Amino acid sequence: MNSSGVVYFSTMIKVIVLGYGNVGRHLVKAFQAAQDVEVVQVYHRSAQDDSELSDVEITSDISEIKVADVYVIAIPDDEIEGFSKQIPKNDGIVVHTSGSVSIQKIHDTHQKGIFYPLQTFSKDRTVDFSTVPICIEAQSERDLETLRTLAESISVSVHHITSVERRKLHLAAVFVNNFSNHLYHISEEILLENNLSFDLLKPLLRETTEKAIISKPAEVQTGPAVRNDEQTIEQHLELLRNKKYRKIYKAITKSITATHGKKL
Amino acid sequence: MNSSGVVYFSTMIKVIVLGYGNVGRHLVKAFQAAQDVEVVQVYHRSAQDDSELSDVEITSDISEIKVADVYVIAIPDDEIEGFSKQIPKNDGIVVHTSGSVSIQKIHDTHQKGIFYPLQTFSKDRTVDFSTVPICIEAQSERDLETLRTLAESISVSVHHITSVERRKLHLAAVFVNNFSNHLYHISEEILLENNLSFDLLKPLLRETTEKAIISKPAEVQTGPAVRNDEQTIEQHLELLRNKKYRKIYKAITKSITATHGKKL
Repeated sequence: MNSSGVVYFSTMIKVIVLGYGNVGRHLVKAFQAAQDVEVVQVYHRSAQDDSELSDVEITSDISEIKVADVYVIAIPDDEIEGFSKQIPKNDGIVVHTSGSVSIQKIHDTHQKGIFYPLQTFSKDRTVDFSTVPICIEAQSERDLETLRTLAESISVSVHHITSVERRKLHLAAVFVNNFSNHLYHISEEILLENNLSFDLLKPLLRETTEKAIISKPAEVQTGPAVRNDEQTIEQHLELLRNKKYRKIYKAITKSITATHGKKL
Repeated sequence: MNSSGVVYFSTMIKVIVLGYGNVGRHLVKAFQAAQDVEVVQVYHRSAQDDSELSDVEITSDISEIKVADVYVIAIPDDEIEGFSKQIPKNDGIVVHTSGSVSIQKIHDTHQKGIFYPLQTFSKDRTVDFSTVPICIEAQSERDLETLRTLAESISVSVHHITSVERRKLHLAAVFVNNFSNHLYHISEEILLENNLSFDLLKPLLRETTEKAIISKPAEVQTGPAVRNDEQTIEQHLELLRNKKYRKIYKAITKSITATHGKKL
């Protein structure tokens, strides 16, 4: 903390959000609701029908970008590197919001940073940003403090995470989010094939999540694999006609058995 | 419906719950709270310290079992067959509560049925039974009606499901519950190895579930696999040191790619 801390923190942080997909859209809303943040501009490649953005200046021309303290890139992962080159040199911090892209992919003309909200965003669902973990990284203490102040203006869960840690975190998030979701899809497919509704499983789905949140997942593991119930496992493999699903079933079953074996 | 329907449905259904593990305990509570159900007895092998059961007769001697309309076996899957032989012949319906055990495993001296609550139960968590899907099956219309009345006394979600369907349902439940939970465990392990807290992923975990409940899981699939982002996939596989976790990663990634490919 420096001696001018009080003055510094009471200053409005000027933010420009670049990109207006799911992440950008939610960030703009959250920043607009925050007390000490001013969204001075939104860069939106196809800025047309956004009545929600009536109170913010929008541009689709990157050369028209204004002056801000933080430039938040919220575009697809593989476009970050190329896009960051096009952002005019400035005195702010240029951050991206991706879990898997290195801080080094931001072009060297900029002061670089990361502002990674660890959540899945959808167009039609409101997210309570105040509990979304925001993982920040910067290249100087001063920049880190600015990003921390910005993050704390919208969330109570702010974490300084290195790029190496962020990669691990993203990998863990893939298991929790992307992979679980695919398992839900498989479940739904099994049910639909038999004219059963996925609704039947929704209370179970919700309770599974709540249990894992309250307890340690390994401690609440149940099912044929953890019981080593070979007869049920065999029956299940016979029922699964999709080869790829059988592979998943076998791989997870082996891993559960191994995890449980280790514990005994 | 028969002509004596009104009289029949207004009669108290007498129930005996056999087994007092997680399922048995929750069922007894739910039945006790129901208006038209009387829990006449609980069979509990090691009936000692159960102050919660002060208002119900408990026995640990199967030969002392009383007269009831429905005998609900709530014990581990692999003990159901043997145990059902020990239940004295009676005029009630003998049902079990398992998702994967055939109705035929109940001994032939009994009128057989299934009363399968599709939920995961824990000792310390209260379950709102009113939304738990209860899957019933019986060998006569009359028995089915009795089980339906009993199930509807504790839940609004009652389903007549055949044994064949129940097996598929159980398989789907294994993906949603057991397998997802193991993925959560893997996530937690990845984080702990890096001194990061699983708490970071909990908001994501919850939102992933809610999204799958509201939308179709396949429609909200995101992540490197669905984008075919080979670079990130390679990085992730390098980070995963546990061979079994790598196998799971590969199997699910291939399946996501295949599912998404089919849709295009």
